[in-house]
Amino acid sequence: MLQRITELEFYSPEQLTSVIFGISRAAFAILVVVVGVHFALKVGRFLITKMLQPEGKKYALDPKRAQTLQAILISLLRYSLYFVGGLVILDAIGVPTTSVLASAGLVGLAVGFGAQNLVRDVITGFFILFEDQYSVGDYVALAGIEGIVEDIGLRTTRIRDFNGDLHIVPNGHIDLVTNKSRGSRRALVEVSVAYESDLCRVQEVLEGISREIAVAMPEIVDGPTVLGVSKLDDTKITFQILARTVPMAEWKVEREMRRRIKLGLDTAGIETPYPRRVVYLNNREKK
Amino acid sequence: MLQRITELEFYSPEQLTSVIFGISRAAFAILVVVVGVHFALKVGRFLITKMLQPEGKKYALDPKRAQTLQAILISLLRYSLYFVGGLVILDAIGVPTTSVLASAGLVGLAVGFGAQNLVRDVITGFFILFEDQYSVGDYVALAGIEGIVEDIGLRTTRIRDFNGDLHIVPNGHIDLVTNKSRGSRRALVEVSVAYESDLCRVQEVLEGISREIAVAMPEIVDGPTVLGVSKLDDTKITFQILARTVPMAEWKVEREMRRRIKLGLDTAGIETPYPRRVVYLNNREKK
Amino acid sequence: MLQRITELEFYSPEQLTSVIFGISRAAFAILVVVVGVHFALKVGRFLITKMLQPEGKKYALDPKRAQTLQAILISLLRYSLYFVGGLVILDAIGVPTTSVLASAGLVGLAVGFGAQNLVRDVITGFFILFEDQYSVGDYVALAGIEGIVEDIGLRTTRIRDFNGDLHIVPNGHIDLVTNKSRGSRRALVEVSVAYESDLCRVQEVLEGISREIAVAMPEIVDGPTVLGVSKLDDTKITFQILARTVPMAEWKVEREMRRRIKLGLDTAGIETPYPRRVVYLNNREKK
Amino acid sequence: MLQRITELEFYSPEQLTSVIFGISRAAFAILVVVVGVHFALKVGRFLITKMLQPEGKKYALDPKRAQTLQAILISLLRYSLYFVGGLVILDAIGVPTTSVLASAGLVGLAVGFGAQNLVRDVITGFFILFEDQYSVGDYVALAGIEGIVEDIGLRTTRIRDFNGDLHIVPNGHIDLVTNKSRGSRRALVEVSVAYESDLCRVQEVLEGISREIAVAMPEIVDGPTVLGVSKLDDTKITFQILARTVPMAEWKVEREMRRRIKLGLDTAGIETPYPRRVVYLNNREKK
Amino acid sequence: MLQRITELEFYSPEQLTSVIFGISRAAFAILVVVVGVHFALKVGRFLITKMLQPEGKKYALDPKRAQTLQAILISLLRYSLYFVGGLVILDAIGVPTTSVLASAGLVGLAVGFGAQNLVRDVITGFFILFEDQYSVGDYVALAGIEGIVEDIGLRTTRIRDFNGDLHIVPNGHIDLVTNKSRGSRRALVEVSVAYESDLCRVQEVLEGISREIAVAMPEIVDGPTVLGVSKLDDTKITFQILARTVPMAEWKVEREMRRRIKLGLDTAGIETPYPRRVVYLNNREKK
Amino acid sequence: MLQRITELEFYSPEQLTSVIFGISRAAFAILVVVVGVHFALKVGRFLITKMLQPEGKKYALDPKRAQTLQAILISLLRYSLYFVGGLVILDAIGVPTTSVLASAGLVGLAVGFGAQNLVRDVITGFFILFEDQYSVGDYVALAGIEGIVEDIGLRTTRIRDFNGDLHIVPNGHIDLVTNKSRGSRRALVEVSVAYESDLCRVQEVLEGISREIAVAMPEIVDGPTVLGVSKLDDTKITFQILARTVPMAEWKVEREMRRRIKLGLDTAGIETPYPRRVVYLNNREKK
Amino acid sequence: MLQRITELEFYSPEQLTSVIFGISRAAFAILVVVVGVHFALKVGRFLITKMLQPEGKKYALDPKRAQTLQAILISLLRYSLYFVGGLVILDAIGVPTTSVLASAGLVGLAVGFGAQNLVRDVITGFFILFEDQYSVGDYVALAGIEGIVEDIGLRTTRIRDFNGDLHIVPNGHIDLVTNKSRGSRRALVEVSVAYESDLCRVQEVLEGISREIAVAMPEIVDGPTVLGVSKLDDTKITFQILARTVPMAEWKVEREMRRRIKLGLDTAGIETPYPRRVVYLNNREKK
Repeated sequence: MLQRITELEFYSPEQLTSVIFGISRAAFAILVVVVGVHFALKVGRFLITKMLQPEGKKYALDPKRAQTLQAILISLLRYSLYFVGGLVILDAIGVPTTSVLASAGLVGLAVGFGAQNLVRDVITGFFILFEDQYSVGDYVALAGIEGIVEDIGLRTTRIRDFNGDLHIVPNGHIDLVTNKSRGSRRALVEVSVAYESDLCRVQEVLEGISREIAVAMPEIVDGPTVLGVSKLDDTKITFQILARTVPMAEWKVEREMRRRIKLGLDTAGIETPYPRRVVYLNNREKK
Repeated sequence: MLQRITELEFYSPEQLTSVIFGISRAAFAILVVVVGVHFALKVGRFLITKMLQPEGKKYALDPKRAQTLQAILISLLRYSLYFVGGLVILDAIGVPTTSVLASAGLVGLAVGFGAQNLVRDVITGFFILFEDQYSVGDYVALAGIEGIVEDIGLRTTRIRDFNGDLHIVPNGHIDLVTNKSRGSRRALVEVSVAYESDLCRVQEVLEGISREIAVAMPEIVDGPTVLGVSKLDDTKITFQILARTVPMAEWKVEREMRRRIKLGLDTAGIETPYPRRVVYLNNREKK
Repeated sequence: MLQRITELEFYSPEQLTSVIFGISRAAFAILVVVVGVHFALKVGRFLITKMLQPEGKKYALDPKRAQTLQAILISLLRYSLYFVGGLVILDAIGVPTTSVLASAGLVGLAVGFGAQNLVRDVITGFFILFEDQYSVGDYVALAGIEGIVEDIGLRTTRIRDFNGDLHIVPNGHIDLVTNKSRGSRRALVEVSVAYESDLCRVQEVLEGISREIAVAMPEIVDGPTVLGVSKLDDTKITFQILARTVPMAEWKVEREMRRRIKLGLDTAGIETPYPRRVVYLNNREKK
Repeated sequence: MLQRITELEFYSPEQLTSVIFGISRAAFAILVVVVGVHFALKVGRFLITKMLQPEGKKYALDPKRAQTLQAILISLLRYSLYFVGGLVILDAIGVPTTSVLASAGLVGLAVGFGAQNLVRDVITGFFILFEDQYSVGDYVALAGIEGIVEDIGLRTTRIRDFNGDLHIVPNGHIDLVTNKSRGSRRALVEVSVAYESDLCRVQEVLEGISREIAVAMPEIVDGPTVLGVSKLDDTKITFQILARTVPMAEWKVEREMRRRIKLGLDTAGIETPYPRRVVYLNNREKK
Repeated sequence: MLQRITELEFYSPEQLTSVIFGISRAAFAILVVVVGVHFALKVGRFLITKMLQPEGKKYALDPKRAQTLQAILISLLRYSLYFVGGLVILDAIGVPTTSVLASAGLVGLAVGFGAQNLVRDVITGFFILFEDQYSVGDYVALAGIEGIVEDIGLRTTRIRDFNGDLHIVPNGHIDLVTNKSRGSRRALVEVSVAYESDLCRVQEVLEGISREIAVAMPEIVDGPTVLGVSKLDDTKITFQILARTVPMAEWKVEREMRRRIKLGLDTAGIETPYPRRVVYLNNREKK
Repeated sequence: MLQRITELEFYSPEQLTSVIFGISRAAFAILVVVVGVHFALKVGRFLITKMLQPEGKKYALDPKRAQTLQAILISLLRYSLYFVGGLVILDAIGVPTTSVLASAGLVGLAVGFGAQNLVRDVITGFFILFEDQYSVGDYVALAGIEGIVEDIGLRTTRIRDFNGDLHIVPNGHIDLVTNKSRGSRRALVEVSVAYESDLCRVQEVLEGISREIAVAMPEIVDGPTVLGVSKLDDTKITFQILARTVPMAEWKVEREMRRRIKLGLDTAGIETPYPRRVVYLNNREKK
Repeated sequence: MLQRITELEFYSPEQLTSVIFGISRAAFAILVVVVGVHFALKVGRFLITKMLQPEGKKYALDPKRAQTLQAILISLLRYSLYFVGGLVILDAIGVPTTSVLASAGLVGLAVGFGAQNLVRDVITGFFILFEDQYSVGDYVALAGIEGIVEDIGLRTTRIRDFNGDLHIVPNGHIDLVTNKSRGSRRALVEVSVAYESDLCRVQEVLEGISREIAVAMPEIVDGPTVLGVSKLDDTKITFQILARTVPMAEWKVEREMRRRIKLGLDTAGIETPYPRRVVYLNNREKK
């Protein structure tokens, strides 16, 4: 518009009428944009709501999560439409938007590069929520840390580890997520006996202890199994005993297994050997 | 169109007719686009279906995988065509699409950079499916983790390891895939005997034990072979015994081999030596 | 304008009037811009103030922090608007802004890349303040260092560690923030007893000492618990005792726990074993 | 064309004829393009075939490899020409291709970045084939893994290692290729003797054994050589014996060399010393 | 202008006059630019001076630093304005600046990327000076090196370490700055006593020595404190003694503390134990 | 041209003649381009030849290398000129080259990024040849590998190491080149004697042996020098003896030096001590 | 021009004259460019010469270095001006330079990215020369290697280390430069004495030896100082003796200091203790 005003009067003398005409036309363009944005928002809102309806979906989103996502998506759409609509209107009334924004390109380049982290955070955050990679209360490992999820946001995830440290992780730094609260967990204990021990007897004793542990500990999902000889050392032989437990109980189960195996082997008279060495004495005086 | 409306009336007084004429023309353009998109979609769908037909292909895609890929490709094509068609129509009715999108460039730059991870995930995911790099149930190593594949999606792969951890890996982070479920696996056991042992006798005994193991374990594909002297230490000599097994049985076979070799060597009276040292006693009082 | 002046006179002889006309028009454009910028500033200021009002918000910003953020945002908005307004005016009076800036593109590219660090610092700094990731006085770990926050700025954070080192961290280098001053802290002590000890008696003694410690130290939030056998060594058995403390007291509590456990075990006659070895003497002269 | 149709009628009344004229012209343009593409394809096919003809070339491509490369290059050329031709035609009939593609720029930026990996894979794959860096069956080390090449594709190389792992390596991740199947291989054995040994006698004995090995093993290309004293330790002296073998036989040769050297030294009465220590006994009671 | 000359004469015969007219106009444009640049320089100089005035500022810049910054900023502004002004003039007299520079784009791209390091150096250097991150003479750690600052420039910082090495660090490689000359420093000494020692007596003796040290060394800011039992080993117990000193004196204080503690413990008859081992002799002949 | 044909006829009825005129003009343009390219090629060829003439140059290129470079440069120039010439001709006959290439921008972006490795390989390869960084047969270390150069190409360098591995290194991965065949090489042997030895006597003996070695080995450029005491250990003192040799003889010389020093020290009655330990026996029964 | 020729004749019949007119005009433009380039070169040469004049400068450039820099800068300016001038002339005679270069954009992108290393090398090389970071003959550490500078070029630096390796380092890989030939160097020797030694006597003896060394060695700039107790071990106490030497003499001084300290301590009857251990014998038969 503005450009038009300064441009056209040099061709014809009907400038005033044409200006008035132009203004009314601009008003009409604005009207069209406003109506269009309003309508597009309605349609988008409907589509988002339908997309996130929980029934009959591949990803069974629980209602609370669906609602969060819906709110986020609608508000994203709303601001995008406002932004585009605003630009069209500015363009229609003659503000040289392209030129201004292009002029701002130097600043823009820096801002664009600088802000990409922010965008990456939000995109990753969206997929974490949408694909239900982890929930609040899960024990997860990600971005080099481990702990219990305290809060999942669009930009950051807050995780508290056993030290009590509160880790605030930008979502964009989360690549590989390891969720340790979905499915059973492994408890693994290694026991060493002397090289001279009777392998079959040790195996029997360990299996007896395992049966007792299986009965005693309700956290165990899949009873301890004696896997066999996992290592043949110079001075000892190592057995592995493996159990599967409910999540977060693996450490407790391992400690109890260790205690019971120790006591059981003591009872059976089987001991873990001290380190050994054969020494050849040489009394010749040498240097 | 919109631009046209505000632009042209200053040249000729036949504005109204020309506007009507323009609108009918825009309607015609829309018609052309709609028909074109519809037709392109038909053709694309046909080409995709033909491309993925299993018979007579280099990559023997199983039908289920082919169907998944077909659905993904058609839906990708559909949205691309809708997007391009929509832009052409908007352009035809005079919405300054280029300008709006260019104006949105600052935001776009950030979004473009931020979204490249997403695109990379999808492209890599497509090739994982298309080249059948691994299937659900395979034991694989990728992106620094190892485990059994639970789910392959376009954006992420879910892998569960022996600890019970569920790893959610964005496909874009998968470079090198190591599939451990295709072909036979190596089981390797090392046995040390004293430096003074009779090498030939040890070799014979080990070969006898290997023959027994080959008979006893059906998981072994290629019978244990005694490779020979793999290391000459100060105080011991190390032999390697190698077998090939069906996938996922290597650890079990190794444990059993270790147990039987230990028992067999005990029977033959061959023992692994304790660490040794020669000590020169010097009773001179020195400091 | 400038371009216009050199361009238009070759078409019509009414140049002088048109130039005067153009100048008055440029003056009008400037007026419009000035008013627009002023108005936009008013609106923006109002919106920012409302957005940061503490009541009824998700992020409970304390008033001081809110005020800092408000000042920063308004001043950012002000300079952005001045910059855009200035460009529009320059454009209106005919300075070829686009061309000049595009011409400066070579320099601009280098500057744009070089300055992205600066932008990233400011964006991250804004989010650290806005999301209250840490406050002055918190004990945090970030960017590979640990210490107490002395100052949080838009571009840098200053952290002092126990050595007395003052670390000046550009905010853009802060990804993962670990805040160690929010919530209770873990104090963990490991005690080893001889392999031959009576496990049950040791457990009892340790639990007695733990009860004493819980009474004696007010910094302990959650009384020391004897977790059980955490390691089975060749020559010793390791117990873990765990307590939770108020922030920054974990080291002091651990030292006191260590002292009391040592004294308690001494009293009970339980000792940590020296390292052990079985030596097989071989008096044969060998080399 | 489309643009033209909506644009030109406002200038002259001869619109209908001009439109018809334009259509016939567009048809002519299409004809030219079709003929041009056809011709370019012919020429390109001829040039590719000639370029890959095996006789009188620096890189002696075996016929099978040449045929694979030829097929790949022609099909690449074909689709490039179709793509460019299609764009010219669309342009000629007035579809605003530039504008559509520019509009798609946001998506395109992300896709372009995301797809660069794909392109890099294909370019590297082409050079691997063209420069014959390795063939199927070669034992190679690349991208951090080692194994036998099972398949070389344009996008990925499949390598199987001794564990039985199948590694699927995107070609773009292959920088440095180490081909271990071209030329002879080194087999190197280190033997230690006591510090007090007679160096000349040991050297003689080892050279005698080496001559025997050279006769006994046909895999050895260049007979084992006794290199001399490679290390002077506190308690022993280390000799190196080196042989060159045919590819993939180095491990077998090393094991046999180790066995024969051990037996030979035993026969000659030269033994590897146990670790030694001088102990100063101090019977004073000290703490 | 140049373009204009070759362009316009084909429309009207009044070329010569118009050329003369154009030249006078170009001269006028140059005049405007020269005046504008001069004025802008004046204003900028005034603003920079005011911005760096030391009174009533957040960052208390010392006068010398302020003067350096002022000189740098003014000279930066001057060359920027000259550059822009030059481009506007070239444009006005018809040199196709945009086209030339765009043509030079290939070279420019490479230069732009290559020069970004230079820009980053200068930007970081500016902030180091402006935020007073370190001064000449400070002992700092940055970019993986440690030493005393000898010189701070806009592009590089020169640091000399204790070896006498002169490190020349480009400022762009400086992220995290650790300044070790601001505030007190920690001196920490660890002392071990035998496992059987009387903990309370040791604590008393150490506290006595600490009091002596506090008196003897004026470099100590905060008197040595005995922190307590920091480690419980198999054969010894470790105490920590901590003091705070003036900058650069921590090593001297630690050496003196070590000497006095050693002497003090000797006087009190408390000794650091030698390493210990329990040996079980087994005279059975076992290989 | 093509555009012109469809564009111009709506203004004037003289279309046919103008089209013919245009065609003849296009033919003329093509002629100009062909002549221009031919001429530029001539000039370029002359300049390249002159630039690489060996006499009176800073870099003394041997004739063979110069010829290789000349061939490469001329062929590079030829294809660049053909490419540019082709584009100008296409442009002249009206193929919308810019538009086509811009349209191909999405593909181009990916290709451009993907191909940059290729370009970098060639540029680095050119400088390796031009600056004569290494020749075929040199022993070099680069890109993390070491070996003898077998072939230097524009894109890759082939290096064979002592294992027999053939490393194919893309030139773009070569940053730092370490050439080990230019100048003399260091041979360094370390000898330890007992702590109680007479330092002066040892020095004398070693110097005597060094003189013998200098005489005996013609590969030694700079006679072995006894550097002095390089390490003071608990139980031994280490001397360094250093010699400089011709390239590739350093390992042989070191082995011979070790052998002769061992024999010489034996003759002089100086021995390397075994490791030592003082043991305090404590017969009190302790745990 | 070329475009003009094919464009303009359809408007007016005066084509021939206009073409001639255009040619003469083009010739005039060429003349202007030639004169301009010549003049700019003169001015640039003058400015460069003045800038590098040694008197009264901050960076005292020695004349040889100044001359090198001057030659480089002038030749850089010359080719830049030729390049820009050439483009302006091509533009003036109607070769569509922008279009050609833009068309070459795909290739250009790859070249631009590939060539940035080259540019970075040259820029860094310029600053190394200009800031005098090191000279030929200096002992420097940079880019992970250490050695004596043999040659400094615009693109590479050649460094020879003590092994005789010739390292060719592209300047762009040089970030942090450590110059070890400017200022004095540290020689540091550590001596251990038995835990039971008399600290004061040892200190005295060491100080006596230091005084002797200071007299004996002229390479020492700052006489050896006994720093005190740097480590308190279980069985020994470590003293540090420090001296400062002229560059490159630190290793020789350290060796001589070690020799003299050893001899001095021997004379004074102070010895470095052997490692010690307390052994508790336990004759109970245990396993």
